[in-house]
Amino acid sequence: MARVAVIGAGPSGLAQLQAFAAARSSGVEVPEVVCFEKQSDWGGLWNYTWRTGLDQYGDPVHGSMYRYLWSNGPKECLEFADYPFDTHFGKPIPSFPPRAALYDYITGRAMQSGVRDQIRFDSAVRWVGFSDDRFQLTVESRADGRTSTEEFDHVIVATGHFSTPNAPEYPGFATFPGRIMHSHDVRDAQEFTGKDLLILGSSYSAEDIALQSKKYGARSVTVAYRNAPMGFGWPDGIVEVPKLERVEGRTAHFVDGTSRDVDAIVLCTGYRHWFPFMEDELRLQTTNVLYPDNLYKGVVWTANPKLMYLGMQDQYYTFTMFDAQAWYARDVVLGRATLPSRAEMDADIASWRARQDTLSNPAEDIDFQTDYVRDLLKVIDYPAFDLDMVRDHFNTWEHHKEESITGYRDRSFASPCTGSVGPLHHTPWWDEPDDTLETFLR
Amino acid sequence: MARVAVIGAGPSGLAQLQAFAAARSSGVEVPEVVCFEKQSDWGGLWNYTWRTGLDQYGDPVHGSMYRYLWSNGPKECLEFADYPFDTHFGKPIPSFPPRAALYDYITGRAMQSGVRDQIRFDSAVRWVGFSDDRFQLTVESRADGRTSTEEFDHVIVATGHFSTPNAPEYPGFATFPGRIMHSHDVRDAQEFTGKDLLILGSSYSAEDIALQSKKYGARSVTVAYRNAPMGFGWPDGIVEVPKLERVEGRTAHFVDGTSRDVDAIVLCTGYRHWFPFMEDELRLQTTNVLYPDNLYKGVVWTANPKLMYLGMQDQYYTFTMFDAQAWYARDVVLGRATLPSRAEMDADIASWRARQDTLSNPAEDIDFQTDYVRDLLKVIDYPAFDLDMVRDHFNTWEHHKEESITGYRDRSFASPCTGSVGPLHHTPWWDEPDDTLETFLR
Repeated sequence: MARVAVIGAGPSGLAQLQAFAAARSSGVEVPEVVCFEKQSDWGGLWNYTWRTGLDQYGDPVHGSMYRYLWSNGPKECLEFADYPFDTHFGKPIPSFPPRAALYDYITGRAMQSGVRDQIRFDSAVRWVGFSDDRFQLTVESRADGRTSTEEFDHVIVATGHFSTPNAPEYPGFATFPGRIMHSHDVRDAQEFTGKDLLILGSSYSAEDIALQSKKYGARSVTVAYRNAPMGFGWPDGIVEVPKLERVEGRTAHFVDGTSRDVDAIVLCTGYRHWFPFMEDELRLQTTNVLYPDNLYKGVVWTANPKLMYLGMQDQYYTFTMFDAQAWYARDVVLGRATLPSRAEMDADIASWRARQDTLSNPAEDIDFQTDYVRDLLKVIDYPAFDLDMVRDHFNTWEHHKEESITGYRDRSFASPCTGSVGPLHHTPWWDEPDDTLETFLR
Repeated sequence: MARVAVIGAGPSGLAQLQAFAAARSSGVEVPEVVCFEKQSDWGGLWNYTWRTGLDQYGDPVHGSMYRYLWSNGPKECLEFADYPFDTHFGKPIPSFPPRAALYDYITGRAMQSGVRDQIRFDSAVRWVGFSDDRFQLTVESRADGRTSTEEFDHVIVATGHFSTPNAPEYPGFATFPGRIMHSHDVRDAQEFTGKDLLILGSSYSAEDIALQSKKYGARSVTVAYRNAPMGFGWPDGIVEVPKLERVEGRTAHFVDGTSRDVDAIVLCTGYRHWFPFMEDELRLQTTNVLYPDNLYKGVVWTANPKLMYLGMQDQYYTFTMFDAQAWYARDVVLGRATLPSRAEMDADIASWRARQDTLSNPAEDIDFQTDYVRDLLKVIDYPAFDLDMVRDHFNTWEHHKEESITGYRDRSFASPCTGSVGPLHHTPWWDEPDDTLETFLR
């Protein structure tokens, strides 16, 4: 019987196990699936850890999640169509849940479908090669440090791409008398209480860590952008300034000639797609874009279609997109989805990427990714949901952020799966320091 | 012609290149030597970086060095016999140099012997296998992410063992509202200015980071030991307490029932010997001891003597021990040193390890490692130096630390190579915030 290796048990990897479980429960014979997870538990990024740098076994820490993280998009935009929020929580919940609620939701579905015994925890895939029409996976059992090599017919890479920092250097970093860290290593904003913080970046991490830090007591937050400011209506104490030029001692100098003294620097400068365990011919090399090259339907490695990647896109859509991709990958494995010729696959990718080159604003990006997800949904048996409603939610959410960057989470959206409308949270996000599941569900 | 791979261009790896260069310059024909270095420059731990966690290419940061680090032992105890300090600096220098001076010294010798062109920088060894009587090294060129595999007849692992943290978890870490980091990630003690710091550990890192932090302005430093306190005469503001039991919020509770509020926690809990790139049968597995198992003469991998490890011992002796090991490894490669049977090698190791089990204090440890180095020096052509003087220096230095933990660096020792006595530094270490080479040499 064929064997399938899934690498990673975060949202994407669990989606893949879910897809096979769904087929199995409908009576389809499915191959043996083995999921290798480096961490000791499932959930990927959503499995919070206090650790930074290297973990207890010496591997890079996977998690980039910090405390007090709340969803930065409406939960209705990532709702599993086969497992709505109302089903999991037994009641409607607000649209912007804290990390613990989303972790509970993701792992709740996985628990219900009984896929945990397909996962080998503390198992790090060290190398994936391909010969004689099969993949050879060298896997280290981290508890005892022993490696072994197993063969598989298909490999599905679901290791995410928000774990390996992109960290540029600026003049003076080597003599800055305070902490410099990438957002990957941020854990508790109270570390910055009473401090003057410098943040480099202008995307989601910069936005959220700036707000977090102010919310938990930073004296000031200066956000230096490279190309353009985010331009939100920031609360008092947060300002955006042009690109950092250099630091001298604790003084940061910006390209407009201004300067500020700061106590710590956080590099919100993004992440790298990083697959050091894949042999060169199998290794996806891409920046963070909506349609990476060499992946047919955003999933299938065209040079060797027995290899697939999940979730490697820049993301508006998340869990539902991973589901759609995982259902499609499953169908490729099962032979239900027929792949066209290499040339046709390449042409299809080229056409998406040509359209990608024309995108010029968030609304167009959202349309693009909506169409991509729609393209997958057409050919799989994932339960129906109102995709146009999700697209509209994304646009509304963008407007809410323009209206109030501290208030956009105090909004409510309708479910594209059930129509259920989330209640407002009992406390405005900006005034709510407590992110526990208990308080959230109260 | 035979090919030799050296992994790492820090003090041990450079010692290996030096050993081959010395043979070459005396007219001996030596094999091709290729040194693979993950970092962009040489010096290993001594190559300071502001980075923590993962580096610019996504690999674990090798460096554990922090700013303002001064040698914690007399430089006379690590002096290269073929390149005395007086030769390098052109004059006698004090016995406890800052990092920059030692970096200058190590790389100065390497520069003089012209070994730099044998080093491939930004080259990470991803896997070492052995078949058909040769080693296969899979190496990633980090700049472009391409891997290639090359064959070698000998492999010498010189990657150090102070880069991969051992980081235990204590209850409450996940909700501690401040930074928790391993000493590997400490960079600038001014980060702790005005703060109450908790340090876990009772070895060199705990000792030095406690002093550093106080010297640069920490409000208080609490050092929690697991088994026994270091017991030095600490300056005001540093105290030792028994083992940490748990943290609750920012309150650290110790097993004696006392507690303290702290702002940050540094785990000075040691390092792991970590060779994830070695196939299991070649992988050294050891804790940090004076005589690891399975290494004949502390160097030769008995199960496959074409593989050698340098510097894997717990260390009083450093650079000179690495030199002695490297000279011996070279002679094994050149066939000058004849290895006994496997059984004889195992018996020799067992005898050293039996003696190791009897060691009960630093003086005995020092004698043990002195005898180990002497054992190597007997069979190699490394230039003569006064090894007994080094042993005596170590014992004197231990006494100086007992007398004054803030003052032991204000002492002077005689060179075992030249007899030259280091002058006293112009400023007591405790009052000298400036660790630049320029100020040191003034």
